[in-house]
Amino acid sequence: MTFPASSGYTLAELATRLDARLVGDGTLHIRGLATLKAAEPDQIAFVANRSYLKELSGTRAGAVLLHPEHASACPVARLELANPYLAYARLSQLFDPVLSAPQGEIHPTAVVADDVALGAEVEIGPHAVIEAGAELGDRVVVGAGCFVGAGSRIGAQSLLHANVTVSHGVTIGQRAILHSGSVIGADGFGFAHDGSRWHKIAQLGGVVLGDDVEVGSCSSIDRGALDDTVIGNDVKIDSQVQIAHNVRIGDHSALAGCVGIAGSTQVGSNCMLGGGVGLAGHLTICDGVHVTGMSLVTNSIHEPGVYSSGTGAMANAQWRKNAVRFKQLDDMARRLARLEKRTPEG
Amino acid sequence: MTFPASSGYTLAELATRLDARLVGDGTLHIRGLATLKAAEPDQIAFVANRSYLKELSGTRAGAVLLHPEHASACPVARLELANPYLAYARLSQLFDPVLSAPQGEIHPTAVVADDVALGAEVEIGPHAVIEAGAELGDRVVVGAGCFVGAGSRIGAQSLLHANVTVSHGVTIGQRAILHSGSVIGADGFGFAHDGSRWHKIAQLGGVVLGDDVEVGSCSSIDRGALDDTVIGNDVKIDSQVQIAHNVRIGDHSALAGCVGIAGSTQVGSNCMLGGGVGLAGHLTICDGVHVTGMSLVTNSIHEPGVYSSGTGAMANAQWRKNAVRFKQLDDMARRLARLEKRTPEG
Amino acid sequence: MTFPASSGYTLAELATRLDARLVGDGTLHIRGLATLKAAEPDQIAFVANRSYLKELSGTRAGAVLLHPEHASACPVARLELANPYLAYARLSQLFDPVLSAPQGEIHPTAVVADDVALGAEVEIGPHAVIEAGAELGDRVVVGAGCFVGAGSRIGAQSLLHANVTVSHGVTIGQRAILHSGSVIGADGFGFAHDGSRWHKIAQLGGVVLGDDVEVGSCSSIDRGALDDTVIGNDVKIDSQVQIAHNVRIGDHSALAGCVGIAGSTQVGSNCMLGGGVGLAGHLTICDGVHVTGMSLVTNSIHEPGVYSSGTGAMANAQWRKNAVRFKQLDDMARRLARLEKRTPEG
Repeated sequence: MTFPASSGYTLAELATRLDARLVGDGTLHIRGLATLKAAEPDQIAFVANRSYLKELSGTRAGAVLLHPEHASACPVARLELANPYLAYARLSQLFDPVLSAPQGEIHPTAVVADDVALGAEVEIGPHAVIEAGAELGDRVVVGAGCFVGAGSRIGAQSLLHANVTVSHGVTIGQRAILHSGSVIGADGFGFAHDGSRWHKIAQLGGVVLGDDVEVGSCSSIDRGALDDTVIGNDVKIDSQVQIAHNVRIGDHSALAGCVGIAGSTQVGSNCMLGGGVGLAGHLTICDGVHVTGMSLVTNSIHEPGVYSSGTGAMANAQWRKNAVRFKQLDDMARRLARLEKRTPEG
Repeated sequence: MTFPASSGYTLAELATRLDARLVGDGTLHIRGLATLKAAEPDQIAFVANRSYLKELSGTRAGAVLLHPEHASACPVARLELANPYLAYARLSQLFDPVLSAPQGEIHPTAVVADDVALGAEVEIGPHAVIEAGAELGDRVVVGAGCFVGAGSRIGAQSLLHANVTVSHGVTIGQRAILHSGSVIGADGFGFAHDGSRWHKIAQLGGVVLGDDVEVGSCSSIDRGALDDTVIGNDVKIDSQVQIAHNVRIGDHSALAGCVGIAGSTQVGSNCMLGGGVGLAGHLTICDGVHVTGMSLVTNSIHEPGVYSSGTGAMANAQWRKNAVRFKQLDDMARRLARLEKRTPEG
Repeated sequence: MTFPASSGYTLAELATRLDARLVGDGTLHIRGLATLKAAEPDQIAFVANRSYLKELSGTRAGAVLLHPEHASACPVARLELANPYLAYARLSQLFDPVLSAPQGEIHPTAVVADDVALGAEVEIGPHAVIEAGAELGDRVVVGAGCFVGAGSRIGAQSLLHANVTVSHGVTIGQRAILHSGSVIGADGFGFAHDGSRWHKIAQLGGVVLGDDVEVGSCSSIDRGALDDTVIGNDVKIDSQVQIAHNVRIGDHSALAGCVGIAGSTQVGSNCMLGGGVGLAGHLTICDGVHVTGMSLVTNSIHEPGVYSSGTGAMANAQWRKNAVRFKQLDDMARRLARLEKRTPEG
């Protein structure tokens, strides 16, 4: 996790890596990636959708990545391909200093238990702590100040940024990216009440993350009560997300920031939850459901589609009048029905 | 905080500890706890409510914990008692590797100020930092990477998981459990505006947590402006919760994930706040209030009971039509009243 | 970041520092600041608004800070000035143990790369990690367990409390205060979908924080995708806030706890976002907008003013009836319009 200046690529190299059609000088040296507006002559830019076309003619970029249909409007060298947004994603990884090769070093201040199983070229940062029985796969990077609890397993090429906490008994697949402040495997929220006070239900399950999972900063995924909390492959989780015990999330689903999912709810594959969405506990959400931002879901959803709740913001003075009417809504509905009954059809 | 395999208990031992009626072979060795579905012959399961009865006949568990009224349906050895869910909670603690006896060691990499008062058998993990004047009671466990600020006091048998931050001048009772990423005693959000910019109001109060408080991962409890922020005994706080300065919460209340409570609000005893609930500042919520998930409370509540706000999710196409009408709601109410006036009673 | 008892000030000294009119014994020694109710004879209290006037006559404070119009009701020595709340803010800083002079020490357990540029009197706490190429200005304090990534710059007099994470390539202005658990510069949430799975868009932008920015505990500000995420001067951010990639926030704006702002949204200057407010992505919010707690904003706002959404809490039984009617609201509106058509004007 150093921060080197990328040495860059020739435009021809980039064309080969992206399988793109090169039009222009292939020897051009490209040192970075930028927007059409900001790009310098040693950078490459891209046109991912039509709304940016107006900036194409004035770009100072050395080259532009775009769909062939926009080629004629491009004033500089270009790489043509069918899906420029996807190509931008791949290109961005080439220029990411964080994703550059790990150094394969274990910092002398890291505290690594004797029996930890370390794959090849594992990097462990300063002041990280790896407890007994943990296993780190090949080329795993554990950032400064991270904690990996007893017996937890982290798959090959996974990256824990600084100050990540992985509790005991957690299993993480390959190529995971866990951002700073995230906590995997803290106790779920389980208590039994004896009529006067709470008794803790020890959380004996673990957490299982599939391959290619990303977890944002300050997000938490709680361990299961008895069975595991399970996150599928290629699930992408943004920052400040809370996933309670025994939740299960299907492959390829994406959760935006501040989402909260209560205990034992199952989310299908290829679902998208907008920012701040809340799912109540013990629900089943089928595959292909998209819930828009800040919606509250209290019932299971059995049909793919887009779902919403709440009301959009309006001027406060107007809102106050309407919000107070909301409390009269059932009464209004009954009065409306009575009126209909006693009003002759026009 | 090691992760040993529990050596287990005989069924007779468990019957004695739980004060349950044993029916079956008391010498049976029980090594763990599982659901009826998942339990193996060396594990014990439980029936906490009727909805799981259908899984009882097919269980492979060595024994089952249940109410006497369900005894006849149990195909294996059993422990009978009046409150199986509570007994499950107590049983879960017996099998929890985290709650096993602390090791009473102070890791050589921990930085502990000279004058810190340490009780008996205190355990301090690698890279933890305990500042001057702090006091840790008997059998306190401070996990790896934790910070305990100057003069803070942590009561006996409290457990700080890895990477917890307790700021200066915080008082925590006995048997607290603080999960990873939680922050107790950061500054409350206080500023005075001079007409052009903000001036910080130093937060000079502390935080007081009673006995038996649990705080979930990535939750924050801010210190008071002048007086303390006060959390009562046996208060249970889930993950991603924000408690602002000078909030007071009564005994035995429980706050689910993502709750936010604004400054100076007082919550009574035995309250339950659902996930994502928001309480505005300077409110008084009486004892015994239950607020359902994602509700917004902007007025004090003086009667115990269940409170809610918001609207449930629906298909987006339907929602768009209704949400736009919400903005016309006051107008609709006025038109309805006018119609009623000019429509003769049927 | 030690926790000394303040040695205090004479009342005359405080009058001079605050430019207040002193009435009473200027030699009185003031050791602290408290509320009218709690203040002891060696403490000073204040009257910031009329609602506290009733507590003035019975105060045991040694002196009181107040507006001249309330002078006659004050039973003890007093400091008179035009804006007592602002004066309280300034006074609070005098008595804040955290803001006392840093010690200018680099703890021997801190891991500081050789080429880090350190200003005068920089303090770095135990187990902190400062990566290569970072720059820390004069009198910067980095708390225990903090991480500052490669090439990041932190302006003079900034304070990072314990366990803060600043990723690589982040620029922070002067006098910033970052609270524990906050994360600046983790990756934004960017992925391209190829029809079957997600591809990560490396987040190559940084984060720029202006001068006098405060960030609450467990809050996260994500780095930009290509350009930077930019937080203006004197912006105050509470706990548990999520700011997504490429968001821009204007000077002097304040964000209460649990706010979430989606990607590329621009918030103007002097805005105030209440607790739990959510802003959708790619919006423009003009200067001087105030959004009340837990509102959802899905459209740009072009006029200053107060905005709200949602509905307030009510008894659950009442709420259930009204919430179900919300789903019929468009139907109700159509029926109401039809009724109006067929009902003759009174």
